[in-house]
Amino acid sequence: MSPAPTHEFIPPGSRFHALSSPFPMKRGGALHGARIAYETWGTPDAQLGNAVLIVTGLSPDAHAASNAEDPAPGWWEGMLGPGKAIDTDRWFVVCVNSLGSCKGSTGPASIDPATGAPYRLAFPELSIEDIADAAAEVVRGLGIGQLACVIGNSMGGMTALALLARHPGIARSHINISGSARALPFSIAVRSLQREAIRLDPNWNGGEYDDDSYPESGMRIARKLGVITYRSALEWDGRFGRVRLDEQMVPAADDPFGLEFQVESYLEGHARRFVRRYDPNCYLYLSRSMDWFDLAEAGGGDVMAGLARIRVERALAIGANTDILFPVQQQQEVAEGLARGGARAGFIGMDSPQGHDAFLVDLEHFGPAVRDFLDAL
Amino acid sequence: MSPAPTHEFIPPGSRFHALSSPFPMKRGGALHGARIAYETWGTPDAQLGNAVLIVTGLSPDAHAASNAEDPAPGWWEGMLGPGKAIDTDRWFVVCVNSLGSCKGSTGPASIDPATGAPYRLAFPELSIEDIADAAAEVVRGLGIGQLACVIGNSMGGMTALALLARHPGIARSHINISGSARALPFSIAVRSLQREAIRLDPNWNGGEYDDDSYPESGMRIARKLGVITYRSALEWDGRFGRVRLDEQMVPAADDPFGLEFQVESYLEGHARRFVRRYDPNCYLYLSRSMDWFDLAEAGGGDVMAGLARIRVERALAIGANTDILFPVQQQQEVAEGLARGGARAGFIGMDSPQGHDAFLVDLEHFGPAVRDFLDAL
Repeated sequence: MSPAPTHEFIPPGSRFHALSSPFPMKRGGALHGARIAYETWGTPDAQLGNAVLIVTGLSPDAHAASNAEDPAPGWWEGMLGPGKAIDTDRWFVVCVNSLGSCKGSTGPASIDPATGAPYRLAFPELSIEDIADAAAEVVRGLGIGQLACVIGNSMGGMTALALLARHPGIARSHINISGSARALPFSIAVRSLQREAIRLDPNWNGGEYDDDSYPESGMRIARKLGVITYRSALEWDGRFGRVRLDEQMVPAADDPFGLEFQVESYLEGHARRFVRRYDPNCYLYLSRSMDWFDLAEAGGGDVMAGLARIRVERALAIGANTDILFPVQQQQEVAEGLARGGARAGFIGMDSPQGHDAFLVDLEHFGPAVRDFLDAL
Repeated sequence: MSPAPTHEFIPPGSRFHALSSPFPMKRGGALHGARIAYETWGTPDAQLGNAVLIVTGLSPDAHAASNAEDPAPGWWEGMLGPGKAIDTDRWFVVCVNSLGSCKGSTGPASIDPATGAPYRLAFPELSIEDIADAAAEVVRGLGIGQLACVIGNSMGGMTALALLARHPGIARSHINISGSARALPFSIAVRSLQREAIRLDPNWNGGEYDDDSYPESGMRIARKLGVITYRSALEWDGRFGRVRLDEQMVPAADDPFGLEFQVESYLEGHARRFVRRYDPNCYLYLSRSMDWFDLAEAGGGDVMAGLARIRVERALAIGANTDILFPVQQQQEVAEGLARGGARAGFIGMDSPQGHDAFLVDLEHFGPAVRDFLDAL
């Protein structure tokens, strides 16, 4: 087996933070010589009091927006930059690539220094808490005593809560976007099925694939199922309706079950832009870490108690009313729990048709909410 | 390739109606020597004026309830029988297995008389309208001049509308349960992905599988994705929460991505009860027929006009507010459209947590609605 091609996934502007070695993992084992990829925007002030940390969803890298090191647009380009909602004229912004990812941080596709070969399934069990601990080391490594704010989207909303729970005082405030304090069975079921599709692909081969035998079918299904649950039926009714593809766009006229409707072509495009650009084992590890996450563990079995033990001065939880994967009731729960802990905490359920992905695309609604919160700090 | 084992899927109490031969198909081609499996309950009155037809969803057979020929419980056992909501002391009830299915009616798993081998993908393209036309032949073959009511669930809701549109006067009334007048992009996307999972299974082999090389992985994923969309997150939160499986119930402790949560075991049970009991090619054909269905074709491009051309005296459309696959707005559309055509038409959106499957399990709500409608006829 040739090593997995981790190098090609790393944004060119990435910097790297070496984690403490050994880096202990919550569920057992430790990493040696591990690193976290991150990027920054803006300028730290003298006291390093203007630092904002962004922790991400499953698939994004650390390149949230263009910057001096990498002018390519990032995955949150409209939200982050000079004069934008997360205003880099005021804030020194750090975005970390999650531990376990394949976008520059150490994960199952990285080389295990003990063997010289990729970890694959020998990577220790990964939890959201490990991702949070690794992010905390980046924050400390940059000399930041206390973040002005930690912002977490989707899986990053879980990571941010774990960070706040495990590292008291690490941030004065928190914005939780389309996140949750624990995984519930609908999203567990979806992610379990995504993982099963990858594992059932004969090319997955117990994690021992390479470029020539990449589990493309499994990753296609996993990604398409993701996109189905990231959006909403309402948006698609208006966007695609029952519109057919042009005949010349249909890939294979002799395929009786091939693409026919625009919505199928949309899913196909998403799959093509994802497979072979994401490592399947990393996907499995990060996906499972979300299922395991339950802030009730920090609250004696009660998720509200777990949230109430977190100390931040101000908090905001935002989501889309059409999100079926991280439903807004979960963001409401986050706001209520943080308020019990003494935070001035608000909740906004946006009427965005774009479902879970709304924070990426409905910047008209999510932008002002984030801007107003940060401006008032 | 050995013939597909269609025989073992047929309920022992099935009767068979020979379709006209050739039986022309809407999208081209014709069937020769085709048949429809059906079952009956109750006794026809002298004028055959008490007949009720049930057309089904994708997977059910004609055995909706126990009867003299087959005492095993049926898939709608609680709804259909003496004194039940569909009261077989009053009604002569007929349930047909859809054309294209593998439960006794002719479909892609049946033997093509022209070749002596299973049709497989040589079966002509199947539409909801063909399923409706075949059901109409059963009704006529039983000597029924006009049905008192046609009841359609899920895909059967589409079939019933096609039947009413193409066979004016065939029924005096109609109950549309969790059905729709056209497929919309969310459900198209889900079904397209289910079909892709089957087609990507190497064992599918362009439809040329047999018992020894059955596309089990693809069918597992298709079924689990179905079950995820048939239910609702709300129900699962209450039913499963984050409860783990007992350790001895976990199939393989050495499988790092194996079953851990109760909800995963629930999906697994559904998959096991489905794979190898449903023919994959039949699944592909019936699934695609739903995507194609659009009653707007009968209304000059306007779905409401298509519905308004249907003539029934009374109609009722029912659904569950938690249905994400056939959302209640689609049942409301059916009621409004049939009302425009002159029917006394009602709509009930039930507060059932069980999503699309509610009509199968929430008989506390769906039963009285059906009973009240039929009692008033």
